[in-house]
Amino acid sequence: METLDLTEDQLKIDALGEAKSTSPLELSTVYGDNIVNFVDDTETVLLYHDKKEILESINAKKPVLAFEKAGPREKIFFDPDKTCAGIVTCGGLCPGINNVIRTLVLQLFHRYRVTTVYGFQYGYQGFIAQYGHKPLQLTPQQVKDIHEKGGSILASSRGPQNTKEIVDCLERMNISILFTIGGDGTLQGAQSIYEEITRRGLMIAVVGIPKTIDNDICYVEKTFGLESAFSIATEAIRSAHVEAIGAPNGIGLVKLMGRMSGFIAANAALALNEVNFVLIPEVPFDLEGVQGLFTVLKERLERRGHAVIIVAEGAGQQYVMDGAGRKDDSGNPLLGDIGIFLKTEIKKYFKNKTDLYVNLKYIDPSYLVRSVPANAHDAIFCMQLAQNAVHAAMAGKTGLMVGRWNGQFTHAPIRLAASGRKILSPEDPLWLSVLEATGQPIRMVNE
Amino acid sequence: METLDLTEDQLKIDALGEAKSTSPLELSTVYGDNIVNFVDDTETVLLYHDKKEILESINAKKPVLAFEKAGPREKIFFDPDKTCAGIVTCGGLCPGINNVIRTLVLQLFHRYRVTTVYGFQYGYQGFIAQYGHKPLQLTPQQVKDIHEKGGSILASSRGPQNTKEIVDCLERMNISILFTIGGDGTLQGAQSIYEEITRRGLMIAVVGIPKTIDNDICYVEKTFGLESAFSIATEAIRSAHVEAIGAPNGIGLVKLMGRMSGFIAANAALALNEVNFVLIPEVPFDLEGVQGLFTVLKERLERRGHAVIIVAEGAGQQYVMDGAGRKDDSGNPLLGDIGIFLKTEIKKYFKNKTDLYVNLKYIDPSYLVRSVPANAHDAIFCMQLAQNAVHAAMAGKTGLMVGRWNGQFTHAPIRLAASGRKILSPEDPLWLSVLEATGQPIRMVNE
Amino acid sequence: METLDLTEDQLKIDALGEAKSTSPLELSTVYGDNIVNFVDDTETVLLYHDKKEILESINAKKPVLAFEKAGPREKIFFDPDKTCAGIVTCGGLCPGINNVIRTLVLQLFHRYRVTTVYGFQYGYQGFIAQYGHKPLQLTPQQVKDIHEKGGSILASSRGPQNTKEIVDCLERMNISILFTIGGDGTLQGAQSIYEEITRRGLMIAVVGIPKTIDNDICYVEKTFGLESAFSIATEAIRSAHVEAIGAPNGIGLVKLMGRMSGFIAANAALALNEVNFVLIPEVPFDLEGVQGLFTVLKERLERRGHAVIIVAEGAGQQYVMDGAGRKDDSGNPLLGDIGIFLKTEIKKYFKNKTDLYVNLKYIDPSYLVRSVPANAHDAIFCMQLAQNAVHAAMAGKTGLMVGRWNGQFTHAPIRLAASGRKILSPEDPLWLSVLEATGQPIRMVNE
Amino acid sequence: METLDLTEDQLKIDALGEAKSTSPLELSTVYGDNIVNFVDDTETVLLYHDKKEILESINAKKPVLAFEKAGPREKIFFDPDKTCAGIVTCGGLCPGINNVIRTLVLQLFHRYRVTTVYGFQYGYQGFIAQYGHKPLQLTPQQVKDIHEKGGSILASSRGPQNTKEIVDCLERMNISILFTIGGDGTLQGAQSIYEEITRRGLMIAVVGIPKTIDNDICYVEKTFGLESAFSIATEAIRSAHVEAIGAPNGIGLVKLMGRMSGFIAANAALALNEVNFVLIPEVPFDLEGVQGLFTVLKERLERRGHAVIIVAEGAGQQYVMDGAGRKDDSGNPLLGDIGIFLKTEIKKYFKNKTDLYVNLKYIDPSYLVRSVPANAHDAIFCMQLAQNAVHAAMAGKTGLMVGRWNGQFTHAPIRLAASGRKILSPEDPLWLSVLEATGQPIRMVNE
Repeated sequence: METLDLTEDQLKIDALGEAKSTSPLELSTVYGDNIVNFVDDTETVLLYHDKKEILESINAKKPVLAFEKAGPREKIFFDPDKTCAGIVTCGGLCPGINNVIRTLVLQLFHRYRVTTVYGFQYGYQGFIAQYGHKPLQLTPQQVKDIHEKGGSILASSRGPQNTKEIVDCLERMNISILFTIGGDGTLQGAQSIYEEITRRGLMIAVVGIPKTIDNDICYVEKTFGLESAFSIATEAIRSAHVEAIGAPNGIGLVKLMGRMSGFIAANAALALNEVNFVLIPEVPFDLEGVQGLFTVLKERLERRGHAVIIVAEGAGQQYVMDGAGRKDDSGNPLLGDIGIFLKTEIKKYFKNKTDLYVNLKYIDPSYLVRSVPANAHDAIFCMQLAQNAVHAAMAGKTGLMVGRWNGQFTHAPIRLAASGRKILSPEDPLWLSVLEATGQPIRMVNE
Repeated sequence: METLDLTEDQLKIDALGEAKSTSPLELSTVYGDNIVNFVDDTETVLLYHDKKEILESINAKKPVLAFEKAGPREKIFFDPDKTCAGIVTCGGLCPGINNVIRTLVLQLFHRYRVTTVYGFQYGYQGFIAQYGHKPLQLTPQQVKDIHEKGGSILASSRGPQNTKEIVDCLERMNISILFTIGGDGTLQGAQSIYEEITRRGLMIAVVGIPKTIDNDICYVEKTFGLESAFSIATEAIRSAHVEAIGAPNGIGLVKLMGRMSGFIAANAALALNEVNFVLIPEVPFDLEGVQGLFTVLKERLERRGHAVIIVAEGAGQQYVMDGAGRKDDSGNPLLGDIGIFLKTEIKKYFKNKTDLYVNLKYIDPSYLVRSVPANAHDAIFCMQLAQNAVHAAMAGKTGLMVGRWNGQFTHAPIRLAASGRKILSPEDPLWLSVLEATGQPIRMVNE
Repeated sequence: METLDLTEDQLKIDALGEAKSTSPLELSTVYGDNIVNFVDDTETVLLYHDKKEILESINAKKPVLAFEKAGPREKIFFDPDKTCAGIVTCGGLCPGINNVIRTLVLQLFHRYRVTTVYGFQYGYQGFIAQYGHKPLQLTPQQVKDIHEKGGSILASSRGPQNTKEIVDCLERMNISILFTIGGDGTLQGAQSIYEEITRRGLMIAVVGIPKTIDNDICYVEKTFGLESAFSIATEAIRSAHVEAIGAPNGIGLVKLMGRMSGFIAANAALALNEVNFVLIPEVPFDLEGVQGLFTVLKERLERRGHAVIIVAEGAGQQYVMDGAGRKDDSGNPLLGDIGIFLKTEIKKYFKNKTDLYVNLKYIDPSYLVRSVPANAHDAIFCMQLAQNAVHAAMAGKTGLMVGRWNGQFTHAPIRLAASGRKILSPEDPLWLSVLEATGQPIRMVNE
Repeated sequence: METLDLTEDQLKIDALGEAKSTSPLELSTVYGDNIVNFVDDTETVLLYHDKKEILESINAKKPVLAFEKAGPREKIFFDPDKTCAGIVTCGGLCPGINNVIRTLVLQLFHRYRVTTVYGFQYGYQGFIAQYGHKPLQLTPQQVKDIHEKGGSILASSRGPQNTKEIVDCLERMNISILFTIGGDGTLQGAQSIYEEITRRGLMIAVVGIPKTIDNDICYVEKTFGLESAFSIATEAIRSAHVEAIGAPNGIGLVKLMGRMSGFIAANAALALNEVNFVLIPEVPFDLEGVQGLFTVLKERLERRGHAVIIVAEGAGQQYVMDGAGRKDDSGNPLLGDIGIFLKTEIKKYFKNKTDLYVNLKYIDPSYLVRSVPANAHDAIFCMQLAQNAVHAAMAGKTGLMVGRWNGQFTHAPIRLAASGRKILSPEDPLWLSVLEATGQPIRMVNE
């Protein structure tokens, strides 16, 4: 979880050594000359939003916390002619991966003249010889059209691989910079690789680009793909609404991604405001009782004749978990299917306990929300993340991920991401917007 | 099933009486004056496509079969000032229903000055007092924006209602023209209403506008909504393909609508040519054996590393039917879920019988393909169907449905539609296109 | 112009010789065995729609006219191992060109095992050495993703090139089959190439695939790309309508493609029925006078407060032609800009001759309607055209174009296309639909 | 222009009086109880991004600047039963206006039980009797579907109206809260209205919701509609790119909105990275000379065979201004048409001064980018702006606009917006992204 109780050390970015070479970028070092500038390591992005927070910190003699600001450095660490970069994409697909890959390649080639870039295929499997996945050599010509496609041209896989073998492979292939595109598990893997590299004293930079459609990475304001995902999810909501109003006592029930956090569900419900109930992992709900879903749903139907419900896949897990504690290849707990459960239980409730004949239509867009190409917003965001990742790597920075905070691009140590999963707090203004937009009760739990 | 063994009588259109009033439309009766023309009852649309067929008919002294051509008549039967029209939409939702409703209303108001139009709500329930659904009076103002929305502003329901009560309602409300928008069951209902009206000697015209997303109505070349449906279904195929190539041995499996006919599945597979296997109700397939799905799928994966499969919901029912013969409210047999079945069985096959570790991603877009607004093609088609339905009704024609044949708009007796369900013949050139586009074996049944 | 006064000879398809080899396709020759069939040269597609037309022909002892039906032949002419095919795309871009190219390549490779396919670049320039455009060798791998892109991967150019040099190039490169994708001018070029080949006695098949976004090719029911174009053109109409209702006395004026024919304008106006006036080349209109555009537009504004007008680029040329008779590189007359003219004249009229203060918003989507990828309908259509083009070519047929008539795929001699330009007759039911949908006067010319 | 040299007073929000009534919203006042909270007037949003900036302020004994944070207040000023609200939309259309209107109405009705809401039609004209535009009474039923439409259901007009007459109208109609949706000019109007209200001592709150597709309002991080606009603008870029690569030496030239600021052009160029040159008002460029556009364009064509150029409408005005200083109804200077100018001059340059035969395709999507419905992002943003505007108004705050800063919703005095126009600084990281993504020279001005 994010907190303002960090030390300054926890925000410090590691580097492979002093950056001594002159950057090939011809930018200004002076503000005010109308020419875009190199960024200095002393430039920062404050963690705070509120004046009170920062003044309290200062009064308490606590450090004023800020991320290092991302951007091009005047001095770089690597000699482009001798630098070889690698890219790997891990975990589930997410809109924008190809945009990140494309910009990494173009930025390395055209801005820094680094012309040897390998794409490792099928996630961390791509470093392990036994799988037999050959690295692809990536050129501007090969990546020129990939930004309009969903998925990853490098493909992906779940789960960790042996760190030592990965670093062996990096050494063997003479990789100087490794870009890892992935979520929680991938970043943990990147941290292990970074630590092993440090242990071996290698001059290899590891730069993570956080990727999670669920937006659940700490100290990263927003991850790429989220907006494309909730944008496309509105089509399922539109469909659910059309079906709900198209039949007597129609109920449209939509299941959306969101294992531990409800960002997709909440944003989708706001983006197409035809939703009456949003159920997310962060906010508990009862089924029975006067405050429970069944009762409030029944009231809604009696009042308006139809209803639309969105449920995030990780919501209400207490109703559907099998208790066996099974996990997927990435080590995430296997979730019970709350969508199918609600579909069945709602029908059963109305049939057995009421005299309303309801028409429930269930829609599970599943992979449709994550396989789409990046929308315009994410396309820009991915490009800027990748541009900044290249700047950081060329400057010799390592063990970091590029992120965004308060609208600025930042460097944050990868290990910060491992401090927990970001969730959508029920006290966040976003949740207030959802409550106001849906009119659903603030609490759906019986006292 | 469609056949060329009809009598001329079977194609004859009934009328309430002689149309004696002058149409308010100021069209030409002369071809060649560059002014658009009234259509004469002697104008026809040939049923034949091939020269041989027609010459054989003539040689065999059989009648040359042709539909009556749709279009505005010079003389009309109803006096617009005294005419009151009704509209009802039944069965499942389908793209374009609102376009049909809108054009019916606008055409009645603006072209014929019929200003009293009722929309009966929730299908045939809307005529039956006990349900309490009040008819809506429809005006151009109310329908002006509905063509950009999916669903039906009148809502719908499944299943027949008491014909006598329906006709009682028509009499009570003084309806002169009833437009029924619906599929097989709806048209059977319309035929019963038409017969009851005839029995009672009422001057009420019944005009059907065939609606079935499955395109399974005989003697109607294509039904509205089909193209919108398969267009949007391509998004599920795109997603399935992205997922399939995004993981080692990826399989994308998509279930699409199509209870008895594979038109949506076949067209979608052609519209986004990333599909390797299309399974439809009309073409049997084995699972096991050298010609069976599992084997050819395995070969495909070994050769190319990924595969995309589309299955129509009515395909392979022998594997999933429960035998109890249960039916839905419309009287259609309840189908077993071939999608979930294949998802499970394919995984099981590869796990138990092969050494390929496959990643199967299942996508069921369900209502997403039918709740969308009409696309441009269907918007035009719906408008033209509705324009012609109004022309036919105002001319006093009854017991008919408007349709399309060889690209022309036609009148066909409603009872023709009841002669069977149209299917996608495995000998149709469309299926050849699918086989050529996918490369799937012509026969997937073991000898 | 299309006519039913053809001789049978005019519909006859030429062939390079007898097709003696067995097709690699394993289809059936028997109808009724549920296996898709080869098509026989005796199978046809009637030119007629109406029963009267055909009976009159028969009574008058005139031939019953029919196109040869397209489809796979049991015997083929070319030996796939020794066959080398070429593809060229000419004239303006059009949605679906890449779909045609892709299917040609895939069909040749996968169905007939023809593995040498050249793409000639930049239209007929691609055959002429001096331009220096190197032919591309096309493989399934190279074309696999092109169907989701607008334009032509082969690029295009306008204007004819020396026929002898083109045929020299075909001989030099040992091309056996040439597919030309283009409109009127391209087909004339293809006809010349075919005649030169015949003159030289070469065994080279020439097969045209008609391409014109304007849908103006005779004896071809509909050309590919039209539907994608008018679909996307609806966005300009939606915008014009939003702007028109968003300001006092708002007028939205949209110019659409359509040099000689109004198919795009007419279809777009039907597809998004927010249009009040459609001006096309085939239907003359006055500006001044009681029947003229200005007067009826003024009445509309006074009655409803806003109006939307679509004008095809070739409409009203008498107002804007410069008389100098200049032509573009394809030999088409240079058109005056009727859009800008109307924008100026309408404003002037209301300012000078009325007391209405109008807000006119002019939208010219220009290339936006032709550079889009094929929509689902056109994707299928393009695929089927290309599949049938390959079938025809492999059977040794030549000097023909594949087309569609009454919903069936046909072979027609290329020279038929040169008999004139297809136009949207004001007596066509499509124009009636436009008049009914817009409510515009049937005649906008003063007596 | 934005600056950090404000006084605290300049950020202070005015109020009509003490808010004494209890809000009908049942929120928490305690952080940490997992129930969403009222916002206190002491909660703020820091203006700073960088740690150095804030520490320098503190060291220099300057105030720490922060906006008041937007959100629901525990105490409200107006009694909902007696409150009557008004809404007006002014200036050019922009995606999301209807979303703002809809949420204002729903939020007032459902959250605060304010059930009398008037929509004034056609901008400030709507308050002036002589125009005869009747206010519409707005209900949830009337606005339920408007969020999926572009434009404004209230329509708009340009230019100021007499402030006294506007306030007379507010008094006459007993309006307690006025929401003004508009840009620079509208906000100036709102400020005048606010001042006149203050002068008269009326209890009428004026709350502005900044609207400018150009994103040029100071102290507002981003305005709604921008993202929808640049998203849709990518279609013009895609088209330009397709056309550019589809012909020998193809040039695609796209003109986009942006009178004084290049945000749409810059973002669109990043969102679809197929652009080689971006010309914006903030960055001067020469045409001739070694650094000028013509030369660098020629080099690009020689190197790559095609090029895509985006020009914002306000760029390069020195080449096209007529000097007469004419203005539009809003008082904005009439711009010369830089798009048509460049189209002509580029062609002329290549024809007269080079031996390259270029194919230039010009695309001006004009109103197409502003008439679209809000995309998912803007839909959420508009909803949140409107929710917060209602919260502010109900609390009796006045003379303010709701905005966003560092991702938080803020209150800012309307007069701050009048301090200048926000521009895209050539030193902004966004412009660096453009330079890196396009590869265009940092300076296109000859020394």
